[in-house]
Amino acid sequence: MRYLTAADIKKVFSMRQAIEADREALSLYSAGRADIPLRTNIDVPEHNGQSLYMPGYVSSSQPALGIKIVSVYPDNPQKDLPSVPATMITLDATTGVVNAVLDGTYLTQLRTGAIQGLATELLSRSNSSQALLIGTGGQAMSQLLAMLTVRPLKKIYIYDLDQKRATDFAQQAAKKFSRQFAAEFLPIADPDQVVAQVDIITTVTTSHRATFDGQLVKSGTHINGIGAYTPDMCEMPTEVLQKADCIIFDTMDGVLAEAGDIIQPVEKRQLSKNNFTGELGQLINKKILGRTSQNQITVFKTVGTAAVDVVAADRIVKAAQQAKVGTILN
Amino acid sequence: MRYLTAADIKKVFSMRQAIEADREALSLYSAGRADIPLRTNIDVPEHNGQSLYMPGYVSSSQPALGIKIVSVYPDNPQKDLPSVPATMITLDATTGVVNAVLDGTYLTQLRTGAIQGLATELLSRSNSSQALLIGTGGQAMSQLLAMLTVRPLKKIYIYDLDQKRATDFAQQAAKKFSRQFAAEFLPIADPDQVVAQVDIITTVTTSHRATFDGQLVKSGTHINGIGAYTPDMCEMPTEVLQKADCIIFDTMDGVLAEAGDIIQPVEKRQLSKNNFTGELGQLINKKILGRTSQNQITVFKTVGTAAVDVVAADRIVKAAQQAKVGTILN
Repeated sequence: MRYLTAADIKKVFSMRQAIEADREALSLYSAGRADIPLRTNIDVPEHNGQSLYMPGYVSSSQPALGIKIVSVYPDNPQKDLPSVPATMITLDATTGVVNAVLDGTYLTQLRTGAIQGLATELLSRSNSSQALLIGTGGQAMSQLLAMLTVRPLKKIYIYDLDQKRATDFAQQAAKKFSRQFAAEFLPIADPDQVVAQVDIITTVTTSHRATFDGQLVKSGTHINGIGAYTPDMCEMPTEVLQKADCIIFDTMDGVLAEAGDIIQPVEKRQLSKNNFTGELGQLINKKILGRTSQNQITVFKTVGTAAVDVVAADRIVKAAQQAKVGTILN
Repeated sequence: MRYLTAADIKKVFSMRQAIEADREALSLYSAGRADIPLRTNIDVPEHNGQSLYMPGYVSSSQPALGIKIVSVYPDNPQKDLPSVPATMITLDATTGVVNAVLDGTYLTQLRTGAIQGLATELLSRSNSSQALLIGTGGQAMSQLLAMLTVRPLKKIYIYDLDQKRATDFAQQAAKKFSRQFAAEFLPIADPDQVVAQVDIITTVTTSHRATFDGQLVKSGTHINGIGAYTPDMCEMPTEVLQKADCIIFDTMDGVLAEAGDIIQPVEKRQLSKNNFTGELGQLINKKILGRTSQNQITVFKTVGTAAVDVVAADRIVKAAQQAKVGTILN
């Protein structure tokens, strides 16, 4: 058995590798090759907590089997612990033996960034040079890296409700990425200042209302909705969804069950299921079309799936085995 | 996070401690303090395997939360791997953080032995001096130790379909236990030779028919049915169940769903639910009576529950923390 910390994973697995793992996972998912049972939730009311168990299996020549354990304990920060601790367990699908334990928080950041990178690579204009990132929480840095990885961005505007956080984040980003990418990281006070000029908008918040003005979105823009992962959250403006030429989800079942961005306008009959083009895996599998002209507005929405966790984790473990990275447990 | 091998667990946790952990777990289970969701099964048909996920939570002043992952891969022995590899993951129920990974095979052996030890301590005559053990597979040594731990046994007869295995097992048992316990370990060719003279019978097989002649069972005997964990298996003779004065299960739901010993005679109307006294936890909680005279025949049947896994694992992890045993992972 192998134990992999976030630092171990960083050593052996790049954002580009994560994007390729996600591409495989979502392609197999949409082709019906994934078995993702219903999540099991256990409430721990005495400690104001909940613990979620998300196993999955994805069948291919490199089969991936495992379970992500995610807990939600809102009081944890008072104890200097993360409020959403996560651990990933992988099994060798050919023998059923548990073969690795991975930092689940970093895995989630990496694979969620990579899902967006994949969508941005498939849906945004290839000459996109400006992006807007809304939200600078725990998932944001990976979202930024994913955009930088797939498009030749020159300017990335950074917005957060808390201006100081946006400024700090932009500084951190410059420090982290300026050697690798020729991009400027520009904190801004109001996202609507730049909505009309950027090529890509990525919003990653827990907002309950639109984080930018949809009327300002110009033709040709690609929009990623990464946050808003419950039915009562919403961060993408409904106007944009109404005028979008192409709306793609990571999984149809997941988004229609969990994403308030989509569920709320459907319930209000502002959108119908005919507005939804299909799944990212179907696009990869060439079963549907994505962007077909430079002038179209494209939208991607993700809530995640265990299919991506198990495939990404499996590929990380294989890379770590090859590179002899991680702590070996007898 | 802490990683505990079988050897680590042996260092810090005795059969007596396991019996006390199981007592707590089953008492809390029967008092409605356990949340044990349905097991999730994932089939891996390409590799003739199945992977089972069994999470659970038991609420008390020492809350226990975790998941046991058990795979069933019948072709594994050809690869020199166990056909049923198992791993236990524990979480700190107060924070939701994964705090240990344990050898699940040894945990299962230990906690299953301990369930029987607990039942034998509560149901058999306290002066029991002779026992019969039927079956010498992977679970048998722990079953033997459990009986030795709770009763002053002088003679234990060992039976297996394969006589050589029984002889080898008796020799191993003598080597393992003769310093600690003043008992003889006697392989026999036919269990029915001794059924009428022993005080305790423990059968732990995957048989599809009774492993001994129920008509020979004398009054005062206590019988443990530990194997036969699927509806089509059966190792306890129906006659014994019919004449028993007290029939106790580890969990009513589990046994009535999984144990062929019990399900088959109920379906044939040879037994009714009125024959079943209740759960071991109810006996511990003094909600039902167990043996009330020396002459009664008592029967215990277990199929296991995640409640016992999570409590036993939690207590093992706490003991390992105190003793600073195991591999610490940052």
